Amino acid sequence: MTELSTMKDGVANQAEASDRVLQILAEAGRLFASKGFEGTSMRDIALACGISKSLLYHHFSNKDEIYARVAVGSTLELYLFVRDRIPDGPPSQKIRAFMVATAEYFRRYRWAWIASTTAFWNDPDRSRHKERLTRRDRFENFLRGLIQEAIDAGEIRKVDVPMTGRLILSSLNWMHRWYNPNKSATPEQIADVFFDMIFNGLRSGELVALPGAEPPKAGRRKSR
Amino acid sequence: MTELSTMKDGVANQAEASDRVLQILAEAGRLFASKGFEGTSMRDIALACGISKSLLYHHFSNKDEIYARVAVGSTLELYLFVRDRIPDGPPSQKIRAFMVATAEYFRRYRWAWIASTTAFWNDPDRSRHKERLTRRDRFENFLRGLIQEAIDAGEIRKVDVPMTGRLILSSLNWMHRWYNPNKSATPEQIADVFFDMIFNGLRSGELVALPGAEPPKAGRRKSR
Repeated sequence: MTELSTMKDGVANQAEASDRVLQILAEAGRLFASKGFEGTSMRDIALACGISKSLLYHHFSNKDEIYARVAVGSTLELYLFVRDRIPDGPPSQKIRAFMVATAEYFRRYRWAWIASTTAFWNDPDRSRHKERLTRRDRFENFLRGLIQEAIDAGEIRKVDVPMTGRLILSSLNWMHRWYNPNKSATPEQIADVFFDMIFNGLRSGELVALPGAEPPKAGRRKSR
Repeated sequence: MTELSTMKDGVANQAEASDRVLQILAEAGRLFASKGFEGTSMRDIALACGISKSLLYHHFSNKDEIYARVAVGSTLELYLFVRDRIPDGPPSQKIRAFMVATAEYFRRYRWAWIASTTAFWNDPDRSRHKERLTRRDRFENFLRGLIQEAIDAGEIRKVDVPMTGRLILSSLNWMHRWYNPNKSATPEQIADVFFDMIFNGLRSGELVALPGAEPPKAGRRKSR
């Protein structure tokens, strides 16, 4: 649980990532996601954590600092978290591991994730928005590298790499909108099902001709 | 361009869907998406449209009415828009048409779409949120019906229907985060590429064995 630790020069300072700090980030994330940045006060965050305002200020000097950690910091940490969980082996299994690790990160830091994604269109701080885009690009380029590897190895047909990356990320990035932690499947299991669907396709092996229907075009595999 | 018209008892009153109203909804959607509901005033909307506040009040009695049309109304209209664009033919082609029509709606009403999706986690009006969920469910159930049809026809293997629906909707719902109207591919073309990837799968026909790598499990097609 050290992934949401303070980042200094890109290195996690694990000593600072106390349980208290993680609790504050989780509760603040939940509040920012539901009430917005403006609608959330330092008092709200302290109340949600069951701590005094002075203890909250001991850890964070202001609301903006908490927000930056919740909404921006998590993207960099996502990249490191996922990168460390990619096994050796066939590139397609690296893509699967990428998806499962991203889902694990989502499960662990769900409210920080939601706060970060909600801030995308309405964060008034443009430099923070730009930083978020830069980090998003790094994460996405990492996935594109894995897809290119799978194509080079002949595991994946010659599809458009950026479009394939977007499809895979969409399946993960949209999960926060429908995932219910009280239901049985974990985000990791869901990511695994999505990998199977995208990699193997939905198409059935045994096609049944419909009366009056054109046969599906089996050769339709162009990449754009 | 009558799809964002006023809904009365579920029937579009096209006479009211003047160009002016559509312009107001588009500009208001853009403002709500970037500044939030609280951060947007009737004055801002009038300014963005280049009209007087009194002309704006002629069309809408208050900001809440505009917001309801932008953020809630668009979901119902999306369902009607897409339903009317599903052709007869093989179920797989109906799924493709569902995806392309949803993408067309997104292209036409992009800012209303963004305002609506941004409101999901932070709309303080719970009854409006509930109504939005009901409409989302109707749209999603319509897609699930098409997927079940494709399974029954033998076009699609026996996958989990709700999960398949979520994968397809994710690919469309995440588009607002990366789609750039100045790039060449239209949302409809993007939806078509995603349909191909999901239906046919990424997997290559000709697999090349990697040195030291386990062969991919071709039989891994369980549905959950």
